[in-house]
Amino acid sequence: MERDQTSRQRLSGVFAPVLTPFDANLLPDARRFARHCKWLLAQGLRGLAVFGTTSEANSLSVDERESLLEALLGSGVPPGSLLPGTGCCSLTDSVRLTKGAVRAGCAGVLVLPPFYYKGVTDEGLFRSFAELIERVGDSRLRVYLYHIPPIAHVGFSLALVERLVAAYPDTVAGMKDSSGDMNNTRAMIDAFAKDGFAVFSGSERFLLENLRRGGAGCISATANANAAAIDGLYREWQSAEADGLQARLNAVRNAFEKRPVIPALKAVLAHYAKDPAWRAVRPPLLELGAGETAPLVDELRAAGFEMQL
Amino acid sequence: MERDQTSRQRLSGVFAPVLTPFDANLLPDARRFARHCKWLLAQGLRGLAVFGTTSEANSLSVDERESLLEALLGSGVPPGSLLPGTGCCSLTDSVRLTKGAVRAGCAGVLVLPPFYYKGVTDEGLFRSFAELIERVGDSRLRVYLYHIPPIAHVGFSLALVERLVAAYPDTVAGMKDSSGDMNNTRAMIDAFAKDGFAVFSGSERFLLENLRRGGAGCISATANANAAAIDGLYREWQSAEADGLQARLNAVRNAFEKRPVIPALKAVLAHYAKDPAWRAVRPPLLELGAGETAPLVDELRAAGFEMQL
Repeated sequence: MERDQTSRQRLSGVFAPVLTPFDANLLPDARRFARHCKWLLAQGLRGLAVFGTTSEANSLSVDERESLLEALLGSGVPPGSLLPGTGCCSLTDSVRLTKGAVRAGCAGVLVLPPFYYKGVTDEGLFRSFAELIERVGDSRLRVYLYHIPPIAHVGFSLALVERLVAAYPDTVAGMKDSSGDMNNTRAMIDAFAKDGFAVFSGSERFLLENLRRGGAGCISATANANAAAIDGLYREWQSAEADGLQARLNAVRNAFEKRPVIPALKAVLAHYAKDPAWRAVRPPLLELGAGETAPLVDELRAAGFEMQL
Repeated sequence: MERDQTSRQRLSGVFAPVLTPFDANLLPDARRFARHCKWLLAQGLRGLAVFGTTSEANSLSVDERESLLEALLGSGVPPGSLLPGTGCCSLTDSVRLTKGAVRAGCAGVLVLPPFYYKGVTDEGLFRSFAELIERVGDSRLRVYLYHIPPIAHVGFSLALVERLVAAYPDTVAGMKDSSGDMNNTRAMIDAFAKDGFAVFSGSERFLLENLRRGGAGCISATANANAAAIDGLYREWQSAEADGLQARLNAVRNAFEKRPVIPALKAVLAHYAKDPAWRAVRPPLLELGAGETAPLVDELRAAGFEMQL
């Protein structure tokens, strides 16, 4: 039974969906990427959810994702810290990226449902994940379901999660819930956490409530900047200071959320790193406007935010 | 000025967004694909909008699309009949597919906007298309904008189309409007058709109205089955029989639209071709249920539909 224990080990803690830097020609910049990843780990984060929504991963080709992953591993970032996004519209692409991640020894994969067709059935989504898992065919595979209906417009019902967990209990290991709806997160935790299913919130705004309810932590865009403080709440959540720490995280997040979050995060990184190249995003996203960084930095500072790069 | 005349030549007529057959392992089946494409052209269609929504193109990898296009051209299908879909979430993928289509001599490309991020700006979408056009950098490129908000949830405003046409008058050649909203199609025709911009309806239900208003035709899923009849209305739209022909097309379309259209079309093809392999779809779509084909075929027959494969 010891083997079973191990196979049920699940991730927990704070992960950053790592921003992807681009060069002047909008090509992914592996050097800046690795440097940022190492900084995030040095802040204490449990790991790196590279190739997520915040990473503009769907604005990258499969080849570009593979090259970045390879460069990252080559730079010495430990594969056990990595939870790459591998869910694409095409089963072929999802299988290829997931196989690569497992082969590289990544801790798990964070998998979007196929998101082009809307109004698809739970049966169709179940088959998507069943095909993915069977085709990867590796007992080391750990799938974390990526639920982000505000953007993907395709998501995971409780019934679908239940069916996936029942069919692949060792493989379907958890979920990132970016619904923004704590009622949904609570329902997922209440239904599945007792079996070890790890439910991450998609924002640190829900981190304390997530942990008190029995969840696993958070995977949050703003962990790209406010990493140490978010991780601090994870470590101190049972302390008397926890509610105060949560309130301080929220104040910082408020400032980011008044802007388009991805360009705002990149602008803040560019500012503190004194490295304007970090501002670049791929279309259809737009860089933060030239005059918009200073007020953001001021607001963040007023909320107690500082960044040492 | 003659050069200008030529460069403004635009497509018109009826196109089929060609269904993509899969084998028992859910891999694309190039042989069946080429056979179906040739059948469609033999029915009289102007061309083949391969790799569209009906084609499950976003369920294919870039490599799979490239291989299918190559096989199709190798089978003797003329490139001038092809209007492949090349718009992906990733600029890198869209550029690669579009370059390949132009190099192959395709008549044009039908381009989805990047569809992962929602609520993006017209400026961001303009930049996506500007980057695509500049990076392909080929005067032969003809871009048809693919507007399908019910599925992509990202679309083209009149202001965005106006800006694209003004910036790239020879390249941005037309649109497929799959909004299902004839008011939108009318607005696009009224604003841009006088400059040669070709507005296709995404359903033959609007074909007669499209042509009477000054549009270019239709690109419709059901043209995979009811090809000759739809093309017949295109040829006869100025005749006294046109309204009757439109009513007959609508009756056939009604039967398909009561079902999930892609699986229904594949089931009908499988039935008439006596080739059950045609039924297969990639997840997240689902095949039509076993008992659902016979009633569909009956309804279609009652609407006057027959198919000779």
